[in-house]
Amino acid sequence: MKTLNVSLGERSYPIYIGQNLLQQKQLLQQHISSKRVMVVSNETVAPLYLKQVEGMLDGIEFETVILPDGEQYKNLEVLNSVFNALLSHNFDRGTTLIALGGGVIGDMTGFAAACYQRGVQFIQIPTTLLAQVDSSVGGKTGVNHPLGKNMIGAFHQPRCVIADTNTLNTLEDKQLSAGIAEVIKYGLLGDAEFIDWLENNMTDLLTRKPEALIYAIERSCQDKADIVAADEKESGKRALLNLGHTFGHAIETGTGYGAWLHGEAVGAGMIMAADMSMRMGWISKQDRDRAYNLIKSANLPTDLPKDMSEQDFMDLMLRDKKTIDGKIRLILLKSLGDAIITDEYNKNALHDMLSEFVRS
Amino acid sequence: MKTLNVSLGERSYPIYIGQNLLQQKQLLQQHISSKRVMVVSNETVAPLYLKQVEGMLDGIEFETVILPDGEQYKNLEVLNSVFNALLSHNFDRGTTLIALGGGVIGDMTGFAAACYQRGVQFIQIPTTLLAQVDSSVGGKTGVNHPLGKNMIGAFHQPRCVIADTNTLNTLEDKQLSAGIAEVIKYGLLGDAEFIDWLENNMTDLLTRKPEALIYAIERSCQDKADIVAADEKESGKRALLNLGHTFGHAIETGTGYGAWLHGEAVGAGMIMAADMSMRMGWISKQDRDRAYNLIKSANLPTDLPKDMSEQDFMDLMLRDKKTIDGKIRLILLKSLGDAIITDEYNKNALHDMLSEFVRS
Repeated sequence: MKTLNVSLGERSYPIYIGQNLLQQKQLLQQHISSKRVMVVSNETVAPLYLKQVEGMLDGIEFETVILPDGEQYKNLEVLNSVFNALLSHNFDRGTTLIALGGGVIGDMTGFAAACYQRGVQFIQIPTTLLAQVDSSVGGKTGVNHPLGKNMIGAFHQPRCVIADTNTLNTLEDKQLSAGIAEVIKYGLLGDAEFIDWLENNMTDLLTRKPEALIYAIERSCQDKADIVAADEKESGKRALLNLGHTFGHAIETGTGYGAWLHGEAVGAGMIMAADMSMRMGWISKQDRDRAYNLIKSANLPTDLPKDMSEQDFMDLMLRDKKTIDGKIRLILLKSLGDAIITDEYNKNALHDMLSEFVRS
Repeated sequence: MKTLNVSLGERSYPIYIGQNLLQQKQLLQQHISSKRVMVVSNETVAPLYLKQVEGMLDGIEFETVILPDGEQYKNLEVLNSVFNALLSHNFDRGTTLIALGGGVIGDMTGFAAACYQRGVQFIQIPTTLLAQVDSSVGGKTGVNHPLGKNMIGAFHQPRCVIADTNTLNTLEDKQLSAGIAEVIKYGLLGDAEFIDWLENNMTDLLTRKPEALIYAIERSCQDKADIVAADEKESGKRALLNLGHTFGHAIETGTGYGAWLHGEAVGAGMIMAADMSMRMGWISKQDRDRAYNLIKSANLPTDLPKDMSEQDFMDLMLRDKKTIDGKIRLILLKSLGDAIITDEYNKNALHDMLSEFVRS
């Protein structure tokens, strides 16, 4: 088992990464100080892993709430069903919530924990690669709004993250690829060496070799933990973690939540960011192609949804959380492995890139 | 004009108290760093004071969202209409929300600010006595749930509070009395001298003499600011501010939000707390009567709703935010002007008090 630490002063917490972690009840119980626990999961994950988590909770009183599965359910209404469950079982301010599932479950459970009685503790047990490498780490929680993704939320750090790579064995192929998109992101935005590793080990990731998965998760979490520790509330550097997300969120919101997996949209968004960076003259055509090929090699979609126009992208990006005073800010690549956030980009490059992508 | 400071490190902020403050645009503008502002108000307050606030915003771009008026609208659904307004106008993370109204508007606007894009700034312009002396100070924000009051929320401090006592001239009498209930609370929980003052000046408060109102607001805010500065997140002493609230929230939830004003329910709740404290042998019958008479002299209701049973109270109090591991914690009086929070009370005293009150 690997243990990483996210350094945030009194909000610091460990990330445990390895096989068979859901059989180690002490790992979980050492982080529970409450008498009662609420496990939040979904209809897909609960039948697979709830029993194991129940085993880890041996001796602790718990209830369970099962949500429908999918990004289209990450909204205030479904969040309220978590509050209903907590209140109807008289859960008090000393409770701990446990998120058992992918990014949607983690984001919603974390936000429920941030708001329930103005804040209770929570623990992340991510069961998708995307959640293990990204969404369970860093304390961003929230729900979507029909007009924008993750628009309603809070920063609320978990007590610990338990990433058991065994849970990845039941993941659909396209969910695995979606997670790899976020892994690739860490390489492209700030870890050039990791890009080399990914090019050499993509087959092992896609065939779910445990050593390859553990290495990729550990390195991704370390990259993310370093950035989050330096800028918890995203006043600066943390925004780089949004590489591919400005375009990706537009795809997710524009096609209706759930049509594209988040990681799939981020993959396509990174291709767009790389292409625009090339048009700005910052990276070479070879580098653009290298990014494209790496994303494609993870079996991620590379073409945009057919029904989105350039104007759709512009309208949706205007509501992006990074947009300030009407200026869309983008994460672009100065080189492969070095991203920057900027609102000083060539508008023609954005226009040319978008019109080319929406046409193809 | 009086200026108090709430000392919370980098989250410190001033409270301005006085007449004609809504004519001083610099007072407001010095706390706005964003280019755009969203004013949140309700159908009752907007026709009275929105024009003045618009005048204060001279030169700043703003939009307005008007909510229905009443505690029954303090819920997730109405909160979402604030998010709808923010998103449809493309408000970004650099925005400032302004709460113009009573406690409901302040709590909801503050919570919207806490959650919108994971946190934006907000300013309180309270227009009821209750909001000026209590709910606008201290950073507690949130909405109700059908199963419990203020169950969903966040701690989020405003940039400043502007309490213009002119706005109290348009307040209904029962709203004024509801505010006085919270003023009396500060006396009973920790400021015995203030109890004397209130007994001597109740008529001036009820007839809205500006000097009396300003003194009562300033002293209440100072008492509250001292407690909040010592315990922002309510891990200890701050719970004393809930004197009368455990019983009061049960009345509000049990009768349906909006049937009783919050301050009215707190007034009745403080009478119950004083009565129980007498039954515990902590205060004399004379002191119990003194508390009762002070509350009654503010024209507050002293009888409980007829349709609530002792069991209703017990069920609702079990869901109180102060309840831990099934133990209801109560704020009781060791003497007039000295409250404590405890779960070590005589259960018979609670039972006897409740059964007497629900019978009468």
